[in-house]
This record gives sequence, structure tokens and C-alpha cells, in this order.
Amino acid sequence: MLSTMQDVPLTVTRILMHGMTIHGNSQVTTWTGEAEPQRRSYREIGERSAQLAHALKDELGVRPDDRVATLMWNNAEHVEAYFAIPCMGSVLHTLNLRLPAEQLAWIVGHAADKVVIVNGSLLPLLAPLLPHLPTVEHVVVSGPGDRSLLEGVAPRVHEYEELLAGRATRYDWPELDERAAAAMCYTSGTTGDPKGVVYSHRSIYLHSMQVNMSQSMGLTDADTSLVVVPQFHVNAWGLPHATLMTGVNMLMPDRFLQPGPLAEMIETERPTHAAAVPTIWQGLAAELAAKPRDVSSLTQVTIGGSACPPSLMAEFDRLGMRVCHAWGMTETSPLGTIARPPAHAVGTEEEMAYRLTQGRFPSGVEARLAGPGGEYLPWDGTSAGELEVRGPWIAGAYYGGADGEPLRPEDKFSADGWLKTGDVGVITPDGFLTLTDRAKDVIKSGGEWISSVELENALMSHPDVAEAAVVAVPDDKWGERPLATVVLKEGATTGFTELREFLAGSVAKWQLPERWTVIESVPKTSVGKFDKKVLRRQYAEGGLDVTTL
Amino acid sequence: MLSTMQDVPLTVTRILMHGMTIHGNSQVTTWTGEAEPQRRSYREIGERSAQLAHALKDELGVRPDDRVATLMWNNAEHVEAYFAIPCMGSVLHTLNLRLPAEQLAWIVGHAADKVVIVNGSLLPLLAPLLPHLPTVEHVVVSGPGDRSLLEGVAPRVHEYEELLAGRATRYDWPELDERAAAAMCYTSGTTGDPKGVVYSHRSIYLHSMQVNMSQSMGLTDADTSLVVVPQFHVNAWGLPHATLMTGVNMLMPDRFLQPGPLAEMIETERPTHAAAVPTIWQGLAAELAAKPRDVSSLTQVTIGGSACPPSLMAEFDRLGMRVCHAWGMTETSPLGTIARPPAHAVGTEEEMAYRLTQGRFPSGVEARLAGPGGEYLPWDGTSAGELEVRGPWIAGAYYGGADGEPLRPEDKFSADGWLKTGDVGVITPDGFLTLTDRAKDVIKSGGEWISSVELENALMSHPDVAEAAVVAVPDDKWGERPLATVVLKEGATTGFTELREFLAGSVAKWQLPERWTVIESVPKTSVGKFDKKVLRRQYAEGGLDVTTL
Repeated sequence: MLSTMQDVPLTVTRILMHGMTIHGNSQVTTWTGEAEPQRRSYREIGERSAQLAHALKDELGVRPDDRVATLMWNNAEHVEAYFAIPCMGSVLHTLNLRLPAEQLAWIVGHAADKVVIVNGSLLPLLAPLLPHLPTVEHVVVSGPGDRSLLEGVAPRVHEYEELLAGRATRYDWPELDERAAAAMCYTSGTTGDPKGVVYSHRSIYLHSMQVNMSQSMGLTDADTSLVVVPQFHVNAWGLPHATLMTGVNMLMPDRFLQPGPLAEMIETERPTHAAAVPTIWQGLAAELAAKPRDVSSLTQVTIGGSACPPSLMAEFDRLGMRVCHAWGMTETSPLGTIARPPAHAVGTEEEMAYRLTQGRFPSGVEARLAGPGGEYLPWDGTSAGELEVRGPWIAGAYYGGADGEPLRPEDKFSADGWLKTGDVGVITPDGFLTLTDRAKDVIKSGGEWISSVELENALMSHPDVAEAAVVAVPDDKWGERPLATVVLKEGATTGFTELREFLAGSVAKWQLPERWTVIESVPKTSVGKFDKKVLRRQYAEGGLDVTTL
Repeated sequence: MLSTMQDVPLTVTRILMHGMTIHGNSQVTTWTGEAEPQRRSYREIGERSAQLAHALKDELGVRPDDRVATLMWNNAEHVEAYFAIPCMGSVLHTLNLRLPAEQLAWIVGHAADKVVIVNGSLLPLLAPLLPHLPTVEHVVVSGPGDRSLLEGVAPRVHEYEELLAGRATRYDWPELDERAAAAMCYTSGTTGDPKGVVYSHRSIYLHSMQVNMSQSMGLTDADTSLVVVPQFHVNAWGLPHATLMTGVNMLMPDRFLQPGPLAEMIETERPTHAAAVPTIWQGLAAELAAKPRDVSSLTQVTIGGSACPPSLMAEFDRLGMRVCHAWGMTETSPLGTIARPPAHAVGTEEEMAYRLTQGRFPSGVEARLAGPGGEYLPWDGTSAGELEVRGPWIAGAYYGGADGEPLRPEDKFSADGWLKTGDVGVITPDGFLTLTDRAKDVIKSGGEWISSVELENALMSHPDVAEAAVVAVPDDKWGERPLATVVLKEGATTGFTELREFLAGSVAKWQLPERWTVIESVPKTSVGKFDKKVLRRQYAEGGLDVTTL
């Protein structure tokens, strides 16, 4: 039996139309590094989005489904691209300006981007790439920067403001299928080629609603959100869409992401909320310690990307900025969990324990833990398994390229379509997730899992240990066993037997490593994470001097 | 180009599974009139919903799409029916226990209800109807009441608790199409047959998200909502679904809707939120004036159904209960607008003006005003037109019966599928709606509209006028003109010319009525509203003594 409800598609266009009318006076403020920031109302954002869409269609020949890339900071023009491109039926492709040049070129080619909209300040990055981007027919430049860099390397070049000038401020937006592609973003996977996630109008709409729900970020038009998390990183966690739905004002730092300017924009523009990864916030804490400012407006900080160190959380609590953890990934749009403590814990000793978890699953996200044997584990707070998630804003495949079928690698998607996150963790009975390891780093020993991170943290709490990395190595009897690689502090003489005894005080006996080695330093990836691949390879090649206890 | 997102349907089942796990410890508390209320956790609600579904399927033979009706107060068992029936693929049909018996019988027959779940206290209403309900095969009775009333009139009778006892507390809920029917509710239209609105799983899911958004009700698991608005009235404004999505606790008054018990349950159970129509709240205000109680927990009150009188709003502000207006109808699920003042008005003189409007359209509701000539009017705060709305939880048709096509009467749905609300109003540029009249009561004079309500309010502010109703009457020159019918206070001698001059102080000259009559009292409908049909008929039949100025 069918309902008698209207069949209205959930589209980014509906978000834009709502934002530019009902919340037409709310604002995007973009930091310029000069005396006055740039201010633009949501009504103007909507009108300029229409102008941009007219220009892309009439001047650049952009058609439905064509990919239009952005290589931009967080600013009002990037917000305009966020709406113009999907609403006209094309696909917004945000490029991560932190990626190595060859990876960027590969991604642009795989997505077959036809246009790149670029901030002038990023031309030194784009210009040398252009000869390697054969699909790109047009470059649109916005904001200050040296245009001469494009000479001889670019196809057709346009000035963003000139493109918009004089065009109609209304656009007859097409009625789109809610399952059509709206935007795409590539993951910078550490192994293999980058993988493209294609968001639909529907997924963006539903994710935006969830972000605005009381138990998620729950901001209102009385709020201003300082959006530090980049727009090229999972749609800035959905904030540019969510804010237009509820009239939250946006404060955009553009390229001024250093602690000094951030502190200054908080003091002068008085945002009430901010969203950022921990490293940015660590820098801000140091800045404020060195040079105090009035940051009292900022009471709510959403931190994601990686776990916020407890010490940093305490520091921000002291400053009156309440940190709320969230967890997600490119494949989850990204809201996967958010760590608002349950009502019964607020004001009790339990509260901090809840806040230090990755958080609770919102209503749109289903979760399960797959154990070592593939069985699903109970939510008992102790059974560790790989987290799998399902929901209307969770990826079920990767983009296969212009003519390819979607990719569904077995290590990323279950047979019944759930996303395998690659994260190992535990879930409490009331649905709070704590991640304990990456699936690729966990040690699979005799049908049980040993968390490498737990062993590392235990080892690093020993006063003589500077750093420690634990990796899985093959074992005839158990399948895998942990290898402990330890960096000792200068002058330390503690032996492996002592360290093993020390470990026995905090982990189960069967988890204690038999294999030990001292190294000079733990190899790291370009973003500073332990590079355990290198250690595993060194072990396999016999390059480590291992003692077996 | 298609997205790579998972295709996960938005269903009531997802709400249930989320509520009974992540928010398994939140509670439904049902008032019993005895020392202890009944308390049931969301986990138990979920388990009992599974038991109810098993019983309906295995014992009563309920199949997908079968309609199962409820004739119940607000209580935990009604919440269980809210989830069991849609989640098993059948259709929940909530019956309005305030309707005249013959209308109820017509509705049950039109929906072809197979089962009625009834509260024992409502058997005196149901029993005499049963001989007129040929489609009903089973009656399930819950709670106290005289079962002997069913003897000889009922088909098979079941005890609710006996049906559930011993059945499995898990149910393998089917994966449903999000556009499938989940629930239905009939409007008690004042003219013609009642009309059935059929909600889909999708519409309920999206509406629940919207209710939980920060700019709507925005409650969290720290809240307890006193749900006074009946579950048989537009799904209790969506609260039973919305609360399971976020873990908000529900306080259910069952049949104890009198001011005394309501005041008592507020004092002892300390809800933070309540939802009710103004009349209930008016009674509560009088009760609290006569016998003060500690109602300090209750800080947020959502009022809908009809406009809250400013004096009542002020009275509740004084009591610390902040009233928030909302507008909607059976056809709008019902959230159509909600009157949270915009941030810039909070704390200013404008704030109360915003709060007295019907409110602002949320992101899921599109609105337009159709003028007298069918043209769409600007949102300028003064152009009055009939409100038309569009959105994923707005009806696009009425139920046509078991074998009938959906009904799309021209006076209720536009050619392009929008709902014609039958309400006339104005919208400000920032999207706040003020309703000024019903479309059927507005006076269409020479291509302009005159609000009957505005004239009435102006007339009733004269010290000699007890009541006044203004209706449209045919006019050769203007099409229609207003007829003023006035009830004078005892002993008053004010003449029509004086009243007309008095009116001239507050309305435009061309709106002033030429036709006047004194009546003894304004005819009223069963719910106490002015019954203008009767006045128009009396005028048409020459039954009124009319003076023309």
C-alpha cells in the first residue's frame, strides 16, 4: 500500500533555496588578512551561485554530470561552488591541496575533471600540474595570486569575478533525482590508488539534517561556526550544507590557518563554535598560552580526524571551550559518531570517560563489530572487532572512473553492502564507540585480537621508553604474534625481560610479546603517523636484530 | 551519474532499532491515577513491539498492508502499536476518540480496518459501534475497563497482555520500501466525508529528524516530554517517533487529561517539555492559579492546533514555561512552521511579535501564497494569500479506499501537486507565517481579500460588543462583501454607524462592512469555533434582519 505523501526529492537545491530565503540574512565571513574581512549574506551567496551556474553552463559549456573541481581554501567563493555545481546537475569535486602533486594529477584524471576553480594563492601548486591534466579545459581563478604562473601551461583561463559579473541572479534549477551524484572526494589511501567517494543529493541532505539534530552539533541561527576543517576534506564535515539549513553563520579562515590569525579571528569575530582536527587546536592552545586573547565567545568545539588527547581536552575545558569528539571518514560523509555524554553521566565522574570515546552512533548510522572469525560481536564494551557501518550517507562502493563500474573491494565492503571501516574498536551497550586499533595493525593471534596500540601505550608509559611500535609478525603456531620495537631514552639500560614484566602489569599474559628489538626511531608517514609497513618489511627482510624471550 | 552511497531505506524500523539499543534506557512513563505510574524502558518497548508483531501475525493473521486501528489514549501500549504495526509492514490507523460515532464507523469502514486495539476505558465508545464495523475481525483490549460490554457485539476478543505473554522479544523485521504506507489518520473535515492521509515510512522518518533539529523542538536525552497532544491526532505531532530517535523520555497522561492530574504529573515527574493545544493549557493555567504547584521543571511548551492567545503566552512566560507556537495540520505530519524567533530579535521588542506568528518554515517545507487571482504573492509581510506547501512529509493526495485511486480534489491540491492548506495568511521576507483567516471565510471583494478575522477582532475590541462574526455575502458589484453580525453586551445601545466609525480606526476604508445585523449569539461548532456556514445560510434564506449603511 502506497502512502499519499508528496514525492519530493531531497536535493542540495532545496538546502540552497531554504538558506537564501528563510535565512537570507545569515552570513559567510571570510578572513582576508586585511583590516576588514569579506562579508556575504546567504541571499548573496544564493544569487552568486546562480551567476556561477550561468557562467559554467553558458561560457564554459559545463553539462549535467560534468565534474567541476575546486582547489580552494575555505571561503565564500568555495561555498558558492558548493551549491552552484550540484544544483545545476553537475558534480563538485573538491581537491585536497595537501596531496603530493602526482596523486593530485592522478585524481583529476580519474575523475575526468573538466574545469578547475582555483584560489590565486594556490596557483604555485596548480600551474606545474596543468601540463599533466589533459581533461581540464578551463581554469577559473579567484582571489589574489600571480596569474602569470598560468602562462603557457593553462588551457582557457577565466577570472571568477569577471565570469559572474552581470549575469542573472536567478537560475531555473533543474529538479534532480535525489540519488544523482552531487559531489565527490578522494581518500588518500596509504596503499593503492586513491579511491573516489561520490556523495548523492540525498546523502548530503540527510547528513545535513543529522548534523543539525539536537544530539549532533545542534547549532542555531544564534551561532557562528568557525570552519577550520577544510572544505576539501569531506565537505568540511558537512558544515557548509548544514549551516544553510538552519541559518548558522560561517566564519571562514581562507589561507590564514596559523595559530596567530585563528586567535585573532576568534577574538574579533566571536564565533560560538569551531570544527577542526586536533593538531590545529594544539597550535591554538600554545598560541593562547603565549599571548592570551578573549576567546570567551567560543564555547563548543567539534574535534575529529583523530582522537583529541585528554590533556588538550582538559586545557580547552579550562578555556571554556567544550570539546566534543566526533568520528568519521571520507566514506561516512563524515558523521559516524559524536561524543555527547548521555544525560545520566553529565556532571558525574563518568562524563569524561564518555567524552573521550569516539562517541555515540546517531540515528542514521547502524553499526556492528566483526570479530576475528567474521562473527558479529556483542556491544559489551570489551569485545573488539572491526567496525562496519551502514546508512544513507555511508559509501557502498568507490567511483570506477568515467566508464567504469563502481568498485567494491572485498576488504572495504561486506557481501551485504556494509562499509568495513578498517578501524577496530569496542562498543558499550549504550552505543559509545572506542577505537583501539587499525584493522591492518591489529595482531591476529590464535583467533583472538591483540591491539598494537594498547601494547604501545603501555610500553611508552615506562620511564625508559621514548617510543615504541608493535607490529604483527607471522608465527607458525598462533598465526601472528606481536613484535615489540622499542626506542630507548638516551642512557637507558632497561632490558627486554624487565620491559616484558612491566607490560604484564597492564595487559593479559597471552598478549605479551616474545619478540623484541631496539630501534633508533620509529619510521613515520608524511603526516607523522607510525609507518608500521616499514617495520613489517624490515622484519620480513631480516633487517631487524630480534631477541626472542 | 549515480552516487556511490548505500541505498538504505528510511523506515520506522530504523527508528525503533536505534531507540531500543542506543537509547534503550530512556523511558515511557504512563500515568495510572494510582500511587505509581507505569515505567517502561525503550528497550522493553522494543521487545514488546516485537511480541505484539508476532501476536498480530501468528494469532490474528495480520498481513502486510492490513490496517490495524488503535482507539487509545497516550500510553506505552499505544507507543508499542506505533512501532509494531508499521515495522511488520502493516498500517497503523489511529482513531480519533472525539469523533461522533457515525463518523468513526464510516472511517473504520473506509480504511477497512481488520483489527482494533482499544483501551478498556474506551469500550463504552467502541462496543455500541462494533455491529456497524463489518471489516473488524479482532478486538484487542488493553488496560482497565468493563469487558462485559463486548459480549454479543464483538468478533474475536483478545487481552493485550495475554497476546504478548511468552512470545519472542525479537522479530525479523522485513526490509521495507521507504515509500510504503506506515500509518494513517483521517481529517475530521467540517464538510464532506473525512479524508484519509497515509504517511509513509519515509515521511515519518524525515519528519522525526526535522522535529529533532535545533531550530524545531530540538530536545535531547536530558529532556522528558509531556505528550498531551493525543496520539490519535497527527501521530502526537510526531513525538513518539522523534523521541526514540534521540532518547527523549516520554511522559504519557493516558486518560488523565484534566488540569488537576496534569499539574500533579508535572510536579512529580518533572517533565522539561510539553506539547498541547491551547485549551488544555488554559485549563492548566487556571488550575495553577487556584492551587500553585512546583512546575519549575517545565521550561518549554510547544503549542499548536490553534493560535495561543497572547494573554496565555504571557501567563506561561511568567510561570517560566516558554511557549513556542507551531502550525500544522493532519496533511503536514504536522510540522509546517515553528515560531522560534530569529537570533537578532531575541531580547528585543520584536521578539514577542515573532513568537505570536505561526512561525518559520523549516528546511523541509516549501511555501507559497496564492492570491485572489491565482497568482503567487511576494513574502512582504502584507500580501495575503492562501498558503500552499510542498515537502516530503506533506500530503499530495487522500486515501481512496481499499480499491480506489488516491483522491486529489482541486480545492485541496494544486495542479503541480502542492497542498492547498485552506489557510490565508502573510509571510515576512524572513519566512515567518501569520495566518489571518480560513480561505473559505475570507471575503473576496473586487479582486482583493478582506480578512473576516481581522474585522471580528477589531469589532470585539469595542467595549459594547460581546461577540462578532463577519461573513462573506454575495454582492453584485464587488462579488462579495462583508456582513457584520454583532452580539451586543447587555444594555448596550451602540448603533451600527458608531461601530462602523470605530472600525474605521483600524481597517482600510474599502474593507468596512455596509451590511450589519444584531444577533443573540454566534452559532458555534462542536469544538466551539464560530460556525459561519450557519450565518451564511441564515443570510441566504433571509433569516437575518440586515441594515445596509
